[in-house]
Amino acid sequence: MERTLIAHLPQAIGQKVKIQGFLHTLRDQKTMQFLILRDRSGMVQVAFYKKANPELAEQISRLTNESVLTITGTVVENPIVKLGGLEVQLETLTVESLAEAPLPLDPTAEVLPSLDYRLDWRFLDMRRAPVTAFFEIQTTLEMAFREYWLQHGFVEIHSPKLMGSASESGAELFEVQYFDTKAYLAQSPQFYKQMAMAAGFERVFEIGPVFRADPSFTSRHMTEFTGLDMEMSYIESHEDVMRFLENMLHYVYQRVAEKHAAAIEAHFGVQLEVPSVPFPRIPMAEAVEILKREGYTLPPEKKGDIDPGGERTLAQFVRREYNHDFFFLTDWPWTVRPFYHMRHPDRPDLTRSFDLIAKGTEIVTGAQREHRYPILREQAIEKGLSLEPIQFYLDFFRYGCPPHGGFGLGLSRLMMVMLNLPNIREAVFLFRGPNRLHP
Amino acid sequence: MERTLIAHLPQAIGQKVKIQGFLHTLRDQKTMQFLILRDRSGMVQVAFYKKANPELAEQISRLTNESVLTITGTVVENPIVKLGGLEVQLETLTVESLAEAPLPLDPTAEVLPSLDYRLDWRFLDMRRAPVTAFFEIQTTLEMAFREYWLQHGFVEIHSPKLMGSASESGAELFEVQYFDTKAYLAQSPQFYKQMAMAAGFERVFEIGPVFRADPSFTSRHMTEFTGLDMEMSYIESHEDVMRFLENMLHYVYQRVAEKHAAAIEAHFGVQLEVPSVPFPRIPMAEAVEILKREGYTLPPEKKGDIDPGGERTLAQFVRREYNHDFFFLTDWPWTVRPFYHMRHPDRPDLTRSFDLIAKGTEIVTGAQREHRYPILREQAIEKGLSLEPIQFYLDFFRYGCPPHGGFGLGLSRLMMVMLNLPNIREAVFLFRGPNRLHP
Repeated sequence: MERTLIAHLPQAIGQKVKIQGFLHTLRDQKTMQFLILRDRSGMVQVAFYKKANPELAEQISRLTNESVLTITGTVVENPIVKLGGLEVQLETLTVESLAEAPLPLDPTAEVLPSLDYRLDWRFLDMRRAPVTAFFEIQTTLEMAFREYWLQHGFVEIHSPKLMGSASESGAELFEVQYFDTKAYLAQSPQFYKQMAMAAGFERVFEIGPVFRADPSFTSRHMTEFTGLDMEMSYIESHEDVMRFLENMLHYVYQRVAEKHAAAIEAHFGVQLEVPSVPFPRIPMAEAVEILKREGYTLPPEKKGDIDPGGERTLAQFVRREYNHDFFFLTDWPWTVRPFYHMRHPDRPDLTRSFDLIAKGTEIVTGAQREHRYPILREQAIEKGLSLEPIQFYLDFFRYGCPPHGGFGLGLSRLMMVMLNLPNIREAVFLFRGPNRLHP
Repeated sequence: MERTLIAHLPQAIGQKVKIQGFLHTLRDQKTMQFLILRDRSGMVQVAFYKKANPELAEQISRLTNESVLTITGTVVENPIVKLGGLEVQLETLTVESLAEAPLPLDPTAEVLPSLDYRLDWRFLDMRRAPVTAFFEIQTTLEMAFREYWLQHGFVEIHSPKLMGSASESGAELFEVQYFDTKAYLAQSPQFYKQMAMAAGFERVFEIGPVFRADPSFTSRHMTEFTGLDMEMSYIESHEDVMRFLENMLHYVYQRVAEKHAAAIEAHFGVQLEVPSVPFPRIPMAEAVEILKREGYTLPPEKKGDIDPGGERTLAQFVRREYNHDFFFLTDWPWTVRPFYHMRHPDRPDLTRSFDLIAKGTEIVTGAQREHRYPILREQAIEKGLSLEPIQFYLDFFRYGCPPHGGFGLGLSRLMMVMLNLPNIREAVFLFRGPNRLHP
């Protein structure tokens, strides 16, 4: 007998079905037993008249919550049942997996334990409807990104995560024992997606893990996260990259809204707004002026940069002035950007770069890259890098390389912003931080 | 002016266009110069009458092959031109990036240097049309997998690659310095996709990197590769997983054939066959008998296993008897499978497992998993594992877990088989092996 998903039971009234799922709750009454069975698609009430089979009734009495059951029975209309006005009259029961009691974490409880404890028992925490919904939404979101990329002629790549030398800087690198030598975990696919530009691929994307040995414990940082990266050739400036990005996000939000607007409101209390394009753009110099006017004082030690508090203040300003959740912070000073960002020809102190701030959180960093070998080499020297470990990268630009740019976007940061989650640890399958490598 | 892709020039006859790409070749004649420009979509001849602008003619004379150019000009029909019967009459030229000469690897050369040398200069090797085509085909193939998964209710996950303890066995693990402790690179998402089953996700997939500290130097092994993994709940046996897999591969091959059959024939000399379903299934016991009849002697040290030579012999048998490139080798002995494979209830010496062999190469390993905690624990002990490092995994099965199964497929192995490539190093963006961490 084929399994019927609980969500499809209204189409099976009067029929015999097989349903499978977790025992959400059991009400064991004098003459009747009511089992609420939960599968990925929903919940249903299963009813059993104890006198029909006292032995089976006794077996049901012994069932523990969260046990996995296979039940066959007949679907009947029952208007007084809250769950869809129907119930399944139990005929047979198979216990696929009996849950131990007590549960270390009860996914049906009203009051949740601490986040840290929930992460310890993440697989039980994940049985809660909002968490299940989270991953369905993320699945749609990622697929929408890929659809958009494919519609625009992009090629997918999987760049290596094991590197023979440091990618961007020596800091925040994880070191790997690699046979009798050392390797490093890639901090981003940056060098490799640029390699694809030198290879003439013109447009590439990658969704994959990114590793940062960052010891910070904020609600926005992880030591391993999923990056959405792209790079495109034959751009005129970073403006082309921003235009591509905002149109893509508009498309992605639309796809998510079409499919999940109701679930997002139900589980996260968020009315999903599809952001209008273009997004506001604020050059850094102007941002500093705005912060002054708004009465926000930037910390002196981060000269040329804007701290998270400043980003939030700017976000409030943008919300007020432009009625928008997103804005681009553009043209960052050369002093706070990596060596491979292209400088403005007429303002070498500024780069053709941008961050995308969403609801006050930075979710994207992007730029036009410097593709001219002699200038790139000079910029690396100016930043005090030793050339030998990055020569393999510098070589990409010696034999013809198109002008290009791109960005990296943090998947969990975007999901966190979209669903108004307070902590990135709730916006990832399994969180990794300086103190957490389990489960 | 917007850029026109070279492939779109036939729709622009008589118009002024901007084209951008690599200088494939230059023929510098007495009165005329002919530049072949190459972009991702194709090649076109650009003509320049030297007397029109002797200064520009001199600049063109100095151009090196593989330099990146922006050219504007008028598209004219010219039936004697082999490349599409048209040419672009050059009006302006901008050198975006002048290539150094000589090139360490000439992507237009007829004779290729050694594979190892090509990997050193992979970005130049990638400019060759078959390599570009390879990644376009792979992009379609991966997207087809995801389409199929989404059509069948799967959720996408990104499981952590940094683990606090070993995943499957202690062997072939890469160790990472993780702040003041040690981490390990995941050898597969096995434990985590099973965690998603315990979480009630029912159906999940992941495409991501997999790390194996395998010191072998064969044409099929890499220390880092892209795995396509899936897991599905509420199966009856491994047969459900095989059925899902063969239908999915049928769909994927169809999508690739629709889009790339001509390119695959042109660049790889392969007439792509969409495999018919069902694929033949051969239980291991029968396979051993077939090998005996075929006169193939299995090496004595791999008792219960079948070596690559045996797999190739069986593939020839299947090709001859069933006219098929694929077959499932099923019901492997317990002695050669990991502890979490489910055993046959009536034959505890055999597992509910399979490999998928394609053109003689193993590309998939799959099984129904043991989801019953006490049995799983016993099986781990029987395999001599210490329970402490895997207790977090064993815990997944203590609080209700649906019966489930799944598989892992190697992306490069599938591409290698599909395109008849002799070596997996040509079937990956950047190869990683015991001796290779660069570029």
